[in-house]
Amino acid sequence: MTPAARRDALRELLRAAELDALLVTDLVNVRYLSGFTGSNAALLVPADGEPGTRLATDGRYTTQAAAEAPDVPRVIERACDRALVAAAGVDGHRRLGFESGHVTVDAHAALLEVASEIGTDPTGAGLELCRAPGLVQRLRVVKDEAEIEALRAACAAADAALADLIGAGGLRPGRTERDIAAELEQRMRQHGADGPSFDTIVAAGANSAIPHHQPTDAVLAAGDLVKMDFGALRAGYHSDMTRTVVLGPPADWQRELYALVAEAQAAGRAALAVGVEVSSVDAAARDVITDGGRGAEFSHGLGHGVGLEIHEAPALSATGAGRLVSGMAVTVEPGVYLAGRGGVRIEDTLVVRPDGAELLTLTGKELLAL
Amino acid sequence: MTPAARRDALRELLRAAELDALLVTDLVNVRYLSGFTGSNAALLVPADGEPGTRLATDGRYTTQAAAEAPDVPRVIERACDRALVAAAGVDGHRRLGFESGHVTVDAHAALLEVASEIGTDPTGAGLELCRAPGLVQRLRVVKDEAEIEALRAACAAADAALADLIGAGGLRPGRTERDIAAELEQRMRQHGADGPSFDTIVAAGANSAIPHHQPTDAVLAAGDLVKMDFGALRAGYHSDMTRTVVLGPPADWQRELYALVAEAQAAGRAALAVGVEVSSVDAAARDVITDGGRGAEFSHGLGHGVGLEIHEAPALSATGAGRLVSGMAVTVEPGVYLAGRGGVRIEDTLVVRPDGAELLTLTGKELLAL
Repeated sequence: MTPAARRDALRELLRAAELDALLVTDLVNVRYLSGFTGSNAALLVPADGEPGTRLATDGRYTTQAAAEAPDVPRVIERACDRALVAAAGVDGHRRLGFESGHVTVDAHAALLEVASEIGTDPTGAGLELCRAPGLVQRLRVVKDEAEIEALRAACAAADAALADLIGAGGLRPGRTERDIAAELEQRMRQHGADGPSFDTIVAAGANSAIPHHQPTDAVLAAGDLVKMDFGALRAGYHSDMTRTVVLGPPADWQRELYALVAEAQAAGRAALAVGVEVSSVDAAARDVITDGGRGAEFSHGLGHGVGLEIHEAPALSATGAGRLVSGMAVTVEPGVYLAGRGGVRIEDTLVVRPDGAELLTLTGKELLAL
Repeated sequence: MTPAARRDALRELLRAAELDALLVTDLVNVRYLSGFTGSNAALLVPADGEPGTRLATDGRYTTQAAAEAPDVPRVIERACDRALVAAAGVDGHRRLGFESGHVTVDAHAALLEVASEIGTDPTGAGLELCRAPGLVQRLRVVKDEAEIEALRAACAAADAALADLIGAGGLRPGRTERDIAAELEQRMRQHGADGPSFDTIVAAGANSAIPHHQPTDAVLAAGDLVKMDFGALRAGYHSDMTRTVVLGPPADWQRELYALVAEAQAAGRAALAVGVEVSSVDAAARDVITDGGRGAEFSHGLGHGVGLEIHEAPALSATGAGRLVSGMAVTVEPGVYLAGRGGVRIEDTLVVRPDGAELLTLTGKELLAL
């Protein structure tokens, strides 16, 4: 789907929301709708057709914007959002939507000032700024095949990096969490990643009981659970996977913990189907862990959408709302964390398909004893 | 300065703003004031003393929050900001400041709902949410010696990575921009960086005329200008440097361009002094480039503060306001970009000191012909 086709799809949502245009300020959404990847930008998308569409950015990006978004007229202006509110006024828009889940209270006040300066016409009407959260996100939640290909390539880079790391004997006592994290990231690049999709988590021994532990100089020791949560970035798309291994023969408690989490993860994956409530996917995995007596130690949601952001809709959690749709890309990542002892998390990235879920993370999920 | 001492300094600002407490939701500010580095958190800081201070985070971070912020009582709750507005109500605060430059319009609406549910007392008073932008940033802008040490270490890792890259003959025709970027990042890690402080820019040949070019598979060729803008992250602190080299003997236009930018950069550095207007620092460098006939091709501000964020106050730009204070850490990075031909940028990180500016970036600034 081209950026132009996405803008066309957005226009339907704008008309349904009775907006004349949308001011897009979330940079991820600007990228999705225009192709532009710079760090300062805004996009104006009118509801009634492509004319009037404008991309604002500053002078650092003049060349890049022309190359990445050749089909959208550019406005070169440091205060991108304010420039486009003024442009919307010039174009005679009345109801201008803004991304209220992204625009800050202060930025909103500045936009209101610009809007108030726009002269009223003979009927007395001016420009009204309307809260319009999540419209572009509603489009982004369903991935097209090109996006799924990018996610597949990102997942493959992460799979290959872990295979290389293990194949080279890189997971062994004496190395530090930081060493492992750096090696995973380097190997992902060797397999085509533009970089890691988030800060790589490597957590050994008791640290593995910290769900979002940042790698330290802690040294891996025989008998440790080693939890690695990492992903690759490819063409803007983020993969996400977690594997937990044990260094040497697993103790009984480690084997049992792993089996419980693996069973929950399989149940979560099996629950992924078009039309299913996201909260019931969470429940499918959580029930396994609760039945195993570890419900209190599974302290986070089951998973989340991935795409141009590492965390995006839908949230697969007990409090999540909505149903799965074909083309959604999500993680399934239950974990159980025993404070002071260790934790296990197992995570794949998958795509919801009409006939179930397609695995993009291809690394096996048997307990590896290295 | 300990987090507790920083909270103490913040309390003075709160009393001056006639606030009873501040709801801190910007995660960088939460880290600065508490030590906690998780990805979901908020902090409540009362104006009248340490009692009533609370850190909210979710269940993933129970262990980490206790380790990183042992001196602040924790509230475990997914909706951190709302939980602390409710807590502020329980504590009887009337005027609760919030970070209006960070809180979104939608999040603000949710906080207003919580505030409105807080029962009014016999005098009819409830909880008022007051816009309070940039208070913690006002403290952060002046670095203490421990912060400057972290910045110095981050700058040293970047200096060492570039020296290694050049020493190993890594900058040569036939390699790609992406190769160079990956090698710089890997070498920074070898020198103690936790990672790059932002996406490394490597831009060769005509690409060097794009101020914020992302590395591609473009191959370096003899005669190319190669611009590298990169930095290291150490203990949360970000360094930032740019060097531009030429592959082989420089052409006259390259030599002249480099000399002009180097002269402007030296003028900018020389202008750094306590009490100087930030806009006049920008002007000191910009005047050199304008006098050289290239004012239109210097399309961005002169520099920015660095610290827990890669871009923070103060902005050294024509439109920046305020004066330099001892302890500010800033970049000085003029550039001239000739579209289709190439560009030069030279950037150091420095600290403003009573007797001038101290260079943290120690790599030389002669034109290197490799």
